[in-house]
Amino acid sequence: MGTLTEEIFSYKLGRTVEQGETVVVDVDHVMSHDTTSPLAIQAFRKLTQQNGGRIFDSQRAHFVFDHIVPAATIAAATLQRDIRTFAREQNVEILQEGICHQVMPEKGYVTPGSIIIGADSHTCTYGALGAFATGMGSTDIGVAYATGRTWFRVPSTINIRLTGTLSSGVYAKDVTLEMVRRVGVDGANYRAIEYTGDLVERFSVSERFTFCNMAIEMGGKAGLVAPDATTQEWLRGRTDREYPMLAPHNPRYERIVEIDASALRPLIACPPDVNNVVAAEEVENVKIDQVFLGTCTNGRLDDLAIAANMLRGKRIHPEIRMVVVPASREVYLEAMRLGYLETFVQAGASVGTPGCGPCIGRHYGVLAPGERALTTMNRNFTGRMGDPTAEIYLGSPATVAATALTGHITDPRNFL
Amino acid sequence: MGTLTEEIFSYKLGRTVEQGETVVVDVDHVMSHDTTSPLAIQAFRKLTQQNGGRIFDSQRAHFVFDHIVPAATIAAATLQRDIRTFAREQNVEILQEGICHQVMPEKGYVTPGSIIIGADSHTCTYGALGAFATGMGSTDIGVAYATGRTWFRVPSTINIRLTGTLSSGVYAKDVTLEMVRRVGVDGANYRAIEYTGDLVERFSVSERFTFCNMAIEMGGKAGLVAPDATTQEWLRGRTDREYPMLAPHNPRYERIVEIDASALRPLIACPPDVNNVVAAEEVENVKIDQVFLGTCTNGRLDDLAIAANMLRGKRIHPEIRMVVVPASREVYLEAMRLGYLETFVQAGASVGTPGCGPCIGRHYGVLAPGERALTTMNRNFTGRMGDPTAEIYLGSPATVAATALTGHITDPRNFL
Repeated sequence: MGTLTEEIFSYKLGRTVEQGETVVVDVDHVMSHDTTSPLAIQAFRKLTQQNGGRIFDSQRAHFVFDHIVPAATIAAATLQRDIRTFAREQNVEILQEGICHQVMPEKGYVTPGSIIIGADSHTCTYGALGAFATGMGSTDIGVAYATGRTWFRVPSTINIRLTGTLSSGVYAKDVTLEMVRRVGVDGANYRAIEYTGDLVERFSVSERFTFCNMAIEMGGKAGLVAPDATTQEWLRGRTDREYPMLAPHNPRYERIVEIDASALRPLIACPPDVNNVVAAEEVENVKIDQVFLGTCTNGRLDDLAIAANMLRGKRIHPEIRMVVVPASREVYLEAMRLGYLETFVQAGASVGTPGCGPCIGRHYGVLAPGERALTTMNRNFTGRMGDPTAEIYLGSPATVAATALTGHITDPRNFL
Repeated sequence: MGTLTEEIFSYKLGRTVEQGETVVVDVDHVMSHDTTSPLAIQAFRKLTQQNGGRIFDSQRAHFVFDHIVPAATIAAATLQRDIRTFAREQNVEILQEGICHQVMPEKGYVTPGSIIIGADSHTCTYGALGAFATGMGSTDIGVAYATGRTWFRVPSTINIRLTGTLSSGVYAKDVTLEMVRRVGVDGANYRAIEYTGDLVERFSVSERFTFCNMAIEMGGKAGLVAPDATTQEWLRGRTDREYPMLAPHNPRYERIVEIDASALRPLIACPPDVNNVVAAEEVENVKIDQVFLGTCTNGRLDDLAIAANMLRGKRIHPEIRMVVVPASREVYLEAMRLGYLETFVQAGASVGTPGCGPCIGRHYGVLAPGERALTTMNRNFTGRMGDPTAEIYLGSPATVAATALTGHITDPRNFL
């Protein structure tokens, strides 16, 4: 008897574990990226200087280069050089194929019932495959690199139940923004969020990634979907590992949030908070300087397909820039084969190498003072994409594509 | 009677012009890019503040965004925002389709007999199409934006005669490095360089771009090839403009440099000077951290084809990074259709959006202290790609591809 979170911890520890307990567990994988690894390595070195300094398992530790790659500054290049040196010493492979949260699942490192920690707040993404995954600070990650273990207070759970059928023009991202609007940016602090309901069951793994990714935008420690046939199908060919098909059993939820998605319209999170959500059609007067399609939230093949289908044979508005960054090399190559990248470039977009793109304002589309962006990112915080007077709006890939065509925020249903 | 340079000035001014004369001429096109336009606009504003401040001809003035695009910093984003505002006021189109020196010819703005000035030192590239083109400081360009004219002391000319047939594995870039080795980095100061000989006649326009581009690396004011059927064929479909097929008539050259290219091997310009040229096979012990294929020197379709053909089905060395940046959107799209981009990405390279890439060390592959790069760029100056202790080696696309496979400088003939 327990939530999916409790079931995972019970499975890992071989005994019944309940929410509120503090436990120490072995982790399946530990991850950090090019901007968090340096501090994690520093913590690791301090901790292990007396005992040889070896990473607990070079096959289960991962450095992913995604945030500022290829390096945009000497400082970034220097940190990357030092991570490479450390990785060579430790025989750890550096993953350079895209965003950590896309590449880790693609590599088969994320399986149902596993526990994964990463030095990035959106590590909760992996819960879409039924793992318990969470972001931690670099120091905690450094300790885990040394020991292969970490501690948790097993969280209580908020259950978000998604039902109904999406209208045309409405996507998983819109449902996600509605969740954040309802729960608030701290409504799930240190809670696990478990997503259930017939809509979740019908959603693809990619769509599940979108809302699990944004569990942290409600303060969630993790966001999870119980594994099912959709999960198994996605994992086929990516891993040979056996995994348990855990599910909640008579779970005790702290709160249940029910959302009938049938009535939803395309939504926008206005700056500067993710729960500042309005209907896209209510803010169509907002002129946009740059749109960005990509990130761990919405940079996958289905996201690119939605936008490419709307842009095919068209040109973006002459006063807007469009940046497209596929989430991974796998996505990039498939989008190229399917003609999406050609569509984007012919429409006037810049297509970047797989990675985080301008999401953290460190390269490839930094905003000037007073500029406005509409993006498929997960955060619209002040200053995240560059100047603190720039404004960030969040929406779905369809809303981004519609806006690219008009130059102002546009309900994608106008192009259906 | 005159050099090609004298013929062009005589044609423009409608009288016989001789080297050494100081002349004022109307220019056909004026260009600046995202990092030089701000100063040019400042000079323009100072000069025109009393008379309304209009650019001389909005169809012959061009702002090209190529150096740090999409913007990598708030400073770059702010400058670009301000250029956009100015361009809108002046009804000047901003070209965002790649490197200025590739896009200006592709757009048909460069024709034989025209005079073009640009706020970039490699504006001499356009001489490959029989234009007289040169780089100037931003202040001179600002004055030209206001007046449509500029002054020149008509340069004397060095004639470089290229003969012979290239061996397999040897390319126009190797010939170019041999020229710089022979003439020196200041051997052509303020001279025009006119390239003749049977090898020049057989070279494609793209290959002519490569060596005209590097005229400035010998101090040249311009680098020119007399227009011929190859030029006309390249221009077909790009411009409807009538142009004169000017040619030198009994020219008086200051110096003639004869190069028999038959004996050349693949060459490398070692840091920190472009004339520090050795055979690639003599420096094969140099370990390389990053290779870069692109730039106005070697970022065209034929350059990408050479490298793609060597990399197809292979993976680059695990300890090297490879950055590929097509010179323009036209090159990018064609390279995508021909499968070159897929080859590069599958080999492990990062493919960037058309532009200058890491050539000026401002984004997309900046070097850390002590790192070494082999690139198809035109300059290996200290600090150009990032940290001043990093080292830059220059070579052909083939040498770059061979080196990507081995991790150290490699003569491409090893892979033929």
